[in-house]
Amino acid sequence: MTRYNQPLGGNEMPRFGGPVTMMRLPAQATAEGLDACFVGIPMDIGTSNRPGTRLGPRQIRDESRMLRPYNMATGAAPFERMQVADIGDVPINTFDLKKSVEIIAEHYREILSHGSVPLTLGGDHTLTWPILRAMKERHGPVALVHVDAHADINEAMFGEAEAHGTPFRRAWEEGCLLNDRVFQIGLRGTGYAPEDFDWGRAQGWTVVQAEELWYRSAAPLMERVRATVGDAPVYLSFDIDSLDPAFAPGTGTVEPGGLSTWQALEIVRGCAGLNLVGCDLVEVSPPYDPSGNTALIAANLLYEMLCVLP
Amino acid sequence: MTRYNQPLGGNEMPRFGGPVTMMRLPAQATAEGLDACFVGIPMDIGTSNRPGTRLGPRQIRDESRMLRPYNMATGAAPFERMQVADIGDVPINTFDLKKSVEIIAEHYREILSHGSVPLTLGGDHTLTWPILRAMKERHGPVALVHVDAHADINEAMFGEAEAHGTPFRRAWEEGCLLNDRVFQIGLRGTGYAPEDFDWGRAQGWTVVQAEELWYRSAAPLMERVRATVGDAPVYLSFDIDSLDPAFAPGTGTVEPGGLSTWQALEIVRGCAGLNLVGCDLVEVSPPYDPSGNTALIAANLLYEMLCVLP
Amino acid sequence: MTRYNQPLGGNEMPRFGGPVTMMRLPAQATAEGLDACFVGIPMDIGTSNRPGTRLGPRQIRDESRMLRPYNMATGAAPFERMQVADIGDVPINTFDLKKSVEIIAEHYREILSHGSVPLTLGGDHTLTWPILRAMKERHGPVALVHVDAHADINEAMFGEAEAHGTPFRRAWEEGCLLNDRVFQIGLRGTGYAPEDFDWGRAQGWTVVQAEELWYRSAAPLMERVRATVGDAPVYLSFDIDSLDPAFAPGTGTVEPGGLSTWQALEIVRGCAGLNLVGCDLVEVSPPYDPSGNTALIAANLLYEMLCVLP
Amino acid sequence: MTRYNQPLGGNEMPRFGGPVTMMRLPAQATAEGLDACFVGIPMDIGTSNRPGTRLGPRQIRDESRMLRPYNMATGAAPFERMQVADIGDVPINTFDLKKSVEIIAEHYREILSHGSVPLTLGGDHTLTWPILRAMKERHGPVALVHVDAHADINEAMFGEAEAHGTPFRRAWEEGCLLNDRVFQIGLRGTGYAPEDFDWGRAQGWTVVQAEELWYRSAAPLMERVRATVGDAPVYLSFDIDSLDPAFAPGTGTVEPGGLSTWQALEIVRGCAGLNLVGCDLVEVSPPYDPSGNTALIAANLLYEMLCVLP
Amino acid sequence: MTRYNQPLGGNEMPRFGGPVTMMRLPAQATAEGLDACFVGIPMDIGTSNRPGTRLGPRQIRDESRMLRPYNMATGAAPFERMQVADIGDVPINTFDLKKSVEIIAEHYREILSHGSVPLTLGGDHTLTWPILRAMKERHGPVALVHVDAHADINEAMFGEAEAHGTPFRRAWEEGCLLNDRVFQIGLRGTGYAPEDFDWGRAQGWTVVQAEELWYRSAAPLMERVRATVGDAPVYLSFDIDSLDPAFAPGTGTVEPGGLSTWQALEIVRGCAGLNLVGCDLVEVSPPYDPSGNTALIAANLLYEMLCVLP
Amino acid sequence: MTRYNQPLGGNEMPRFGGPVTMMRLPAQATAEGLDACFVGIPMDIGTSNRPGTRLGPRQIRDESRMLRPYNMATGAAPFERMQVADIGDVPINTFDLKKSVEIIAEHYREILSHGSVPLTLGGDHTLTWPILRAMKERHGPVALVHVDAHADINEAMFGEAEAHGTPFRRAWEEGCLLNDRVFQIGLRGTGYAPEDFDWGRAQGWTVVQAEELWYRSAAPLMERVRATVGDAPVYLSFDIDSLDPAFAPGTGTVEPGGLSTWQALEIVRGCAGLNLVGCDLVEVSPPYDPSGNTALIAANLLYEMLCVLP
Repeated sequence: MTRYNQPLGGNEMPRFGGPVTMMRLPAQATAEGLDACFVGIPMDIGTSNRPGTRLGPRQIRDESRMLRPYNMATGAAPFERMQVADIGDVPINTFDLKKSVEIIAEHYREILSHGSVPLTLGGDHTLTWPILRAMKERHGPVALVHVDAHADINEAMFGEAEAHGTPFRRAWEEGCLLNDRVFQIGLRGTGYAPEDFDWGRAQGWTVVQAEELWYRSAAPLMERVRATVGDAPVYLSFDIDSLDPAFAPGTGTVEPGGLSTWQALEIVRGCAGLNLVGCDLVEVSPPYDPSGNTALIAANLLYEMLCVLP
Repeated sequence: MTRYNQPLGGNEMPRFGGPVTMMRLPAQATAEGLDACFVGIPMDIGTSNRPGTRLGPRQIRDESRMLRPYNMATGAAPFERMQVADIGDVPINTFDLKKSVEIIAEHYREILSHGSVPLTLGGDHTLTWPILRAMKERHGPVALVHVDAHADINEAMFGEAEAHGTPFRRAWEEGCLLNDRVFQIGLRGTGYAPEDFDWGRAQGWTVVQAEELWYRSAAPLMERVRATVGDAPVYLSFDIDSLDPAFAPGTGTVEPGGLSTWQALEIVRGCAGLNLVGCDLVEVSPPYDPSGNTALIAANLLYEMLCVLP
Repeated sequence: MTRYNQPLGGNEMPRFGGPVTMMRLPAQATAEGLDACFVGIPMDIGTSNRPGTRLGPRQIRDESRMLRPYNMATGAAPFERMQVADIGDVPINTFDLKKSVEIIAEHYREILSHGSVPLTLGGDHTLTWPILRAMKERHGPVALVHVDAHADINEAMFGEAEAHGTPFRRAWEEGCLLNDRVFQIGLRGTGYAPEDFDWGRAQGWTVVQAEELWYRSAAPLMERVRATVGDAPVYLSFDIDSLDPAFAPGTGTVEPGGLSTWQALEIVRGCAGLNLVGCDLVEVSPPYDPSGNTALIAANLLYEMLCVLP
Repeated sequence: MTRYNQPLGGNEMPRFGGPVTMMRLPAQATAEGLDACFVGIPMDIGTSNRPGTRLGPRQIRDESRMLRPYNMATGAAPFERMQVADIGDVPINTFDLKKSVEIIAEHYREILSHGSVPLTLGGDHTLTWPILRAMKERHGPVALVHVDAHADINEAMFGEAEAHGTPFRRAWEEGCLLNDRVFQIGLRGTGYAPEDFDWGRAQGWTVVQAEELWYRSAAPLMERVRATVGDAPVYLSFDIDSLDPAFAPGTGTVEPGGLSTWQALEIVRGCAGLNLVGCDLVEVSPPYDPSGNTALIAANLLYEMLCVLP
Repeated sequence: MTRYNQPLGGNEMPRFGGPVTMMRLPAQATAEGLDACFVGIPMDIGTSNRPGTRLGPRQIRDESRMLRPYNMATGAAPFERMQVADIGDVPINTFDLKKSVEIIAEHYREILSHGSVPLTLGGDHTLTWPILRAMKERHGPVALVHVDAHADINEAMFGEAEAHGTPFRRAWEEGCLLNDRVFQIGLRGTGYAPEDFDWGRAQGWTVVQAEELWYRSAAPLMERVRATVGDAPVYLSFDIDSLDPAFAPGTGTVEPGGLSTWQALEIVRGCAGLNLVGCDLVEVSPPYDPSGNTALIAANLLYEMLCVLP
Repeated sequence: MTRYNQPLGGNEMPRFGGPVTMMRLPAQATAEGLDACFVGIPMDIGTSNRPGTRLGPRQIRDESRMLRPYNMATGAAPFERMQVADIGDVPINTFDLKKSVEIIAEHYREILSHGSVPLTLGGDHTLTWPILRAMKERHGPVALVHVDAHADINEAMFGEAEAHGTPFRRAWEEGCLLNDRVFQIGLRGTGYAPEDFDWGRAQGWTVVQAEELWYRSAAPLMERVRATVGDAPVYLSFDIDSLDPAFAPGTGTVEPGGLSTWQALEIVRGCAGLNLVGCDLVEVSPPYDPSGNTALIAANLLYEMLCVLP
């Protein structure tokens, strides 16, 4: 028997029963004593098209019930070496996005004060901005692996600084990022100007448009990522809409021509060896995939993130 | 041929084609020259449970395509006596609820300046507050027929003054209501205190809990409403969740034991003779009824509202 | 053991297995030797709003799998006194509505030549017109119990004589109906002229608008129907959209304020004693009720029709 | 501040966040110290038509998130007078129904040993049989209020003694019931023999077929129930398929012509004053109502059961 | 500011509000003055399996709301060089397919008389036949890029010349096509004879079965297309069922093993440089993808077509 | 005219009508006289996560209605050389999994006694165990091509020997398999121990994890399979969850990162030349894909299996 928390197994309680925590792990109120923690941010008031990501954390937890402890592809055994639990949700103010941004930042300051690595269940992408702010306060500027259909570097949306299309602009403004170690992967679709994706490039970021990855493995890209990032602290932000809607229909700002789950798995697995200080999986919108499969895939990716934590 | 706008008929364009305006009426940019106008408020950032009402106006318009000009139950012929059009949506700021409240108020001041009666396609119930503010500025305090599962008179929600559970408290505070001519119909469910529904009663309002209407016609109640309201200007706010979820599954804060469509039709038809200065139909959440039937019922109720305008 | 066909029971084959025939009865190619037969007409090219009724017969048969032989409300035991089977579908021409009308008429002439009473699984309401034509050829003009949200007596739709909104006008023109014994029950909604429902009244028909039945039993009405119809041959045409969408969401031309299943059951059961020569259940559109419940209710109503055959 | 557990309020955590326990109450491992407990039985291997009730407890808990502490219709305030928690799920053996029956019985013996009243989230109706066995061991034979579309008194199904159509036959055989104080309410549909519902009557039970309740309040019936049951220990078993599918589409063995939520609420509220020793709400099948509304109604009915506990 | 129509931006009106025109462009009644126009054909009476494409234009327009003006992959800026608008729907006769074919032909003659390039939102594939007829009258025989799971070259279906499986046979018969410049891409599945796909080859057409494209870029194929077609006028007909159902579930005649959105984008983008005189996107059936994603992908492909217009 | 049964064609009966048998083939009660037979096993009581496969056979048959007789990719013409029919469902005991296993074994002994090759429509994967037992009794140990996300070689699940995660362990124990000719293709996901997939390897089986096939054709693998298997009798067991959920969302134990339909078709087509003695397609769960597409793909794969029978 291990000394670490274990996911509740299917031979003790049917998969469709038991607690609705991430991987049916024990719940606890804070990150105290945890090497890593799953934490939900039930928010969609930063979305600009379809809503529903407020229900993302609930459905991701629900559909995580099938996950067993060992990674059959990589051999990873996270529950043999880390103490992990589900610390519940951030009590955002759903009627005020600006206040929610502050609430999130404060919540993550507290999590980080325990030396725990947060794995976030989103929630819309606005949330990455206050997390990065807290990350910087703890770790200084961080490298970034940002997987997404969109660059999310708008100056503003509808005149507002904080929205799900602006987090990386805000983080950049506040010096949260190591600009020579930022990767944006999977960008595509339409824009307000032909140079939308070049803004990041101008800051020194590496932008990998989706087209560059079509029909091929993402493993070589991840080698490049690892070589560039080195041992800098790095944050992984994974927007489920980076995937083609065939693979992840349950999201709000869909762009065809995206990544496959094969590539998504390679990208997360390719972060092994990096000095990950935090990860998020955002933009799962349950009403747009009642089968639960998008959330189930998200749960798998969060598990894969856990597997590659240092 | 009539001199008024007419809904596009099914013998000119199949019902599943043609413009996606309310009842396939002509669109115009402002309320100028209109006796009544349909206007959408695509908003859900004031909701506290399930989202999706931001898509309500689109789906209501879509499903209104079956509506023909004459009312077979009442004989009403609104397009023989009024100029009606669809004036589109209010450009709310979806990232800031407080600003949206201001935008709505300003938009309705403009509509009312044309002497047009607005029939609003919601959107979450927060929107009734700025509309009532604009109404008061134009007409002075108004009588109110409020059909809903919830009283929506919270002092605050999560500390916020503006949310979909507070509009009538705000309206009351600002003196928008004729307190002796306010009816709340269909209230039910659970509350934060046993006296939740008594706050309105203490202001002189008439509160009719859903249980009082079970198994019976709402016509006698509407007689009482008409007798009480008299010729005062009156606003009709109809939350689709007043209906039992059997009749209107597509909404976000569901309470079983509600009204039937039979009663809903009687309530709106029972407003004939009142001096209606505005009406809204709120809280239709398309993702929770992909069949479109909830929106279709909403479209019918909006049509019935048009039929009883003075 | 009975000498009649019996539905396959749940103790011989799980309800979710076995043949997909109506009530899991034996299939046969023609109506020969049958007192009554179930027959499908997979058609939706006569619909004017939402499609999908082409799949109605398949889903009604599928969801009929739960039906057991005895009627617990009325004590009816149809399989103790009649030979019943499922004779499959009419091979309509889905690319030509006019030809399909002819195909249907010919098919029913053949069925009726066996002295069998057809119980039709629709399909859109256009189909009742050719059936009534065949009925008249066999039985002379018939009485009619027509349960529907719509009168379906348009002179034409989009200039066409044959569509799902015209069958009873066509039948009337050809003298298929005993005009003093025609009942239209459940009509409501909007129309192209205030007198739409009065056309039938002018022919001597009895039109019972939905509003007349709200909150009350349909049994007294059916007494009146039986007294009026007497022993004339009578055809029962039941459009599932007569039901309120709460009770039957899976249909294409939805009108709120309709009948309940309580009333629907009373109406069909109230036909006991009539000289029924044929029945249909039309306008079930599976894509608008993926749960299958609308089809399941339709299957039950078809079973109730079987129970009241003379 | 109260000394009892309270549901997590919407002003502390948005309704769409927080723990997925019943009413967002605290979870605990056993019933120790609890006046009443919510407990789930995630099982559908006893179902005979559509599956899915194994997911019922998860969805009921999820959709219970809107429930506030006070009952606005009855004034009940259960959290002011009882210690209540969610004690999780029974670890049934999903591959062996017979063993699961034993597991359930043993689990409830343990719950009852704490003097706690179990409120069960089903799960298919097979589960009531082992619960009644445990009840009898604790309380002796009990009175029964059984609300259902089906009598569930089959001698066997497919040759098996234990299935979702047999629990009350088994309970009767083992002397678990006070036969003169058994009520079966809402029965309807089709049967294998015309006398299916008379078996209970022959044992002295009162059988109220659905038809007897159409269009009317269930309150008079409940007066009769209370007068008959007196102060005997009584068990309430509520099958969600007692409701008409309009009101509860998400279930597996649907029968049209059922109860309304108005009647359902009256039936549960009408148990106030009875000496309730346990309650269950069974047969919610989430895949057949992706909106979650059936589960939400179930959650409300479970809350109403809590409100009427002695 | 540009002198051309622009799509309504997300900073002026939330994406989920505003007019339901293609890309939220201005609507106008005819193609007068337009370089290109979006036009809908709401038709499904030519379909042979699942219906629903009649609702395709409405859902494509609805889901096109996210599209911004610039193409991030190709740099195309169609609204900087062309006047584009949405000219609404063709008023087909939904009760008569043959008449609808005539109506469509006449409608396109009118569009083409303005020198405008029509981009058609289908609607079932029957519609391409009358469009090609109008194209021939204007431009003489045209080259064809036909992307589809099916060859659609049946002599007849159920004895009918006009149906969604026959348009290219009809067009060939009438000499609408430049047979040495016809490409059929993506064909697969089952047939009525082993040589079904060889008929086209016998006419000189190039048939590329889906299998030839598996796991690889479609770019080389499009080079070949461009080399072959040269500067002939060319029509692009894109059936969404060319895509594998993983990528486009919302269609009626599904064949597994199809194209990916990666290939679809390459195919349309690979038409840059061709002398496109018209394009269509057909067979989107909303009831089979309630998420809207299939329509959203269709909207993107229509936008990509606009981008490659000469 | 051929002497073999033919699927009912679309020119005789619309695709959405006609009998709900596999490919609309004739039904018959036993396998007598058949070279191959389609047979359903409506079972889900062996599933460990989401249920619903009990409805798989019904939906696969329903969605098989589009299949025409000839294979356009391979030229196969199965109905020109084999007598094929649909022999209905196995009457499993849905309340007792162990008895159902016996019922299935006995049923397949009977099928095999006619020298017919069974093509099984599942149902959960438990069913392959009794089929393999019957296969061994007829043919001796068989080679195996097992396509799946999971190895299904658990010693037990929840202490039970028979469940959908154990069939190949049971078959191995009983000597049903030629261990040097067993291929497991598509395995992936998480496990209870890092060596879960190595158990098969230790028996001499070839295990091809999904990752090995990403981005590439499965044809080379199938060459290897054919070379290894030679002319041994071989059984093909295809679990639809081998496919990535993008391609087959309607199943119960979903693992991202799976096969594509391109590969699935190659795998089945790559069995041409093998001495196939039986095939199954399991784990289609209709409630998780209401579009029917997963079942439609399953129907296609079953047809492809028919095409490669010796």
